[in-house]
Amino acid sequence: MTIRTDTRNNKWFCEANSQFWPGQEFSIEIEEILYQQRSKYQDVLVFKSKTYGNVLVLDDCIQCTERDEFAYQEMAAFLPLLSHPDPKRVLIIGGGDGGVIREVVKHPQVEEVILCEIDEDVIDVSKKYLPNMAQGFANSKVTVIICDGCEYLKQHTNEFDVIITDSSDPDGPAEVLFEEPYYLLMKAALKQPYGIICCQAECIWLDLPLIKKLVRIGSRLFPSVAYANVSTPTYPCGALGFLVCSLNENAKLTEPNNIKLANELNTKYYTADIHRACFALPAFVRKELEDMNK
Amino acid sequence: MTIRTDTRNNKWFCEANSQFWPGQEFSIEIEEILYQQRSKYQDVLVFKSKTYGNVLVLDDCIQCTERDEFAYQEMAAFLPLLSHPDPKRVLIIGGGDGGVIREVVKHPQVEEVILCEIDEDVIDVSKKYLPNMAQGFANSKVTVIICDGCEYLKQHTNEFDVIITDSSDPDGPAEVLFEEPYYLLMKAALKQPYGIICCQAECIWLDLPLIKKLVRIGSRLFPSVAYANVSTPTYPCGALGFLVCSLNENAKLTEPNNIKLANELNTKYYTADIHRACFALPAFVRKELEDMNK
Repeated sequence: MTIRTDTRNNKWFCEANSQFWPGQEFSIEIEEILYQQRSKYQDVLVFKSKTYGNVLVLDDCIQCTERDEFAYQEMAAFLPLLSHPDPKRVLIIGGGDGGVIREVVKHPQVEEVILCEIDEDVIDVSKKYLPNMAQGFANSKVTVIICDGCEYLKQHTNEFDVIITDSSDPDGPAEVLFEEPYYLLMKAALKQPYGIICCQAECIWLDLPLIKKLVRIGSRLFPSVAYANVSTPTYPCGALGFLVCSLNENAKLTEPNNIKLANELNTKYYTADIHRACFALPAFVRKELEDMNK
Repeated sequence: MTIRTDTRNNKWFCEANSQFWPGQEFSIEIEEILYQQRSKYQDVLVFKSKTYGNVLVLDDCIQCTERDEFAYQEMAAFLPLLSHPDPKRVLIIGGGDGGVIREVVKHPQVEEVILCEIDEDVIDVSKKYLPNMAQGFANSKVTVIICDGCEYLKQHTNEFDVIITDSSDPDGPAEVLFEEPYYLLMKAALKQPYGIICCQAECIWLDLPLIKKLVRIGSRLFPSVAYANVSTPTYPCGALGFLVCSLNENAKLTEPNNIKLANELNTKYYTADIHRACFALPAFVRKELEDMNK
């Protein structure tokens, strides 16, 4: 873990990663370190920052800050939920901070949410240090299972309307979540004919080869596929994307199917207009994805 | 200037600013410092980075990197140009790196471009160290004037179809460019009835009070006003916005008026879809701007 002391003797958490974002670094000033332990799977750090609220860090990568987490959580939840005609049963793989749950249960048609998180420590520290995110765990629609996402999926087929993969980067416990076998398992776990997945799919400015790989996997397995880009200040390059795939060949993923609901979800980032807009990709991204299909 | 040496003895440029983005910092690894001088107006630094190409820094703020500059330059140019029915004469205030010129001259209707930059040193270092950006200076449509933008505008009324303000942050030489007198001067310098301005207007995640002030100024002076948000990895929080205002009350700023042209500009960021999408603002921004009008 990289904690640096500046000339005024203030401490900063520095997010350097020579593999995934070489030559650049984002730092947040630390007010106080609240938790720092190795879990069974990863290094878990929580600190109170000077200007971003409490911050959760896994294996040296910022997972969320209280100040801007809503952008990611709302988009992960509502892009698939507002593209499904009747999203009753939702599975979340990862998401141990509880933020995606908090959003998913706002959708009036959702009846049951299963959260499958591999690392119980993430849930415990989030309940303690990120209470606004972890509030979703108290909802009666929610069941938490501590389990490897792949193992859980192997036991469940044809069960879910929506599967959301809220994972860390493809390094460490989340690595398998960026591979075709995982996508095959998700596909099998979806209900026909409208099942939808929404997966954390990295950054257009840093990970275009990986994004192309994920779009290729998605397109082989699903008739409808779209990639969304979201403004997320505390992720590298300030942007993070989602891959959304539907079993339904007529799915209109880039348009919310209930405009009134989309605008009444008490959100801070998501709106019906944002839902449409996030699928408009910069020319250099669109070209790479189009060239793939030639 | 903050240059830090890490434990492997590598040097990093650290963009800290306790006034504008307290508690956060973005750093770029330095390969070699190419230029470092105080101009008449500001500290000018150019360095070759490890992964972002050459980087121009003014008064400790990153102005552009060769790797991602196109997003800002293309949007600054084409949002107003593709909202004007016949953009023949264009004025650029600031923009000494030449990037916006490079884009503006791509528009087939543009006949004449005046660039009014206060700091000649910025133009000189850009020609030397950012040749891909400064290539626009060689275009025969372009005239460069070394002058204070406000002073230039005072001498020119009813002359320009489009005015683009490509400025640094409101601290130092650019401070006056975020005040109402400057907007009044721009308005007077525009041709009736279709004149459009497009101004660098900071970041939704950091500068909402300033953005509200600018939208308020714009709305007092122009019948059509819209705010656009752009993904820009090397600006703070990875986002930067533009305020676009038209003299024409029927202007449709959020829709490019020539879709075919919009998609044929040989751009890396801008597309017709991106033009529409960038005006979809996150709920927390939209709410603040709407509440202002109540």
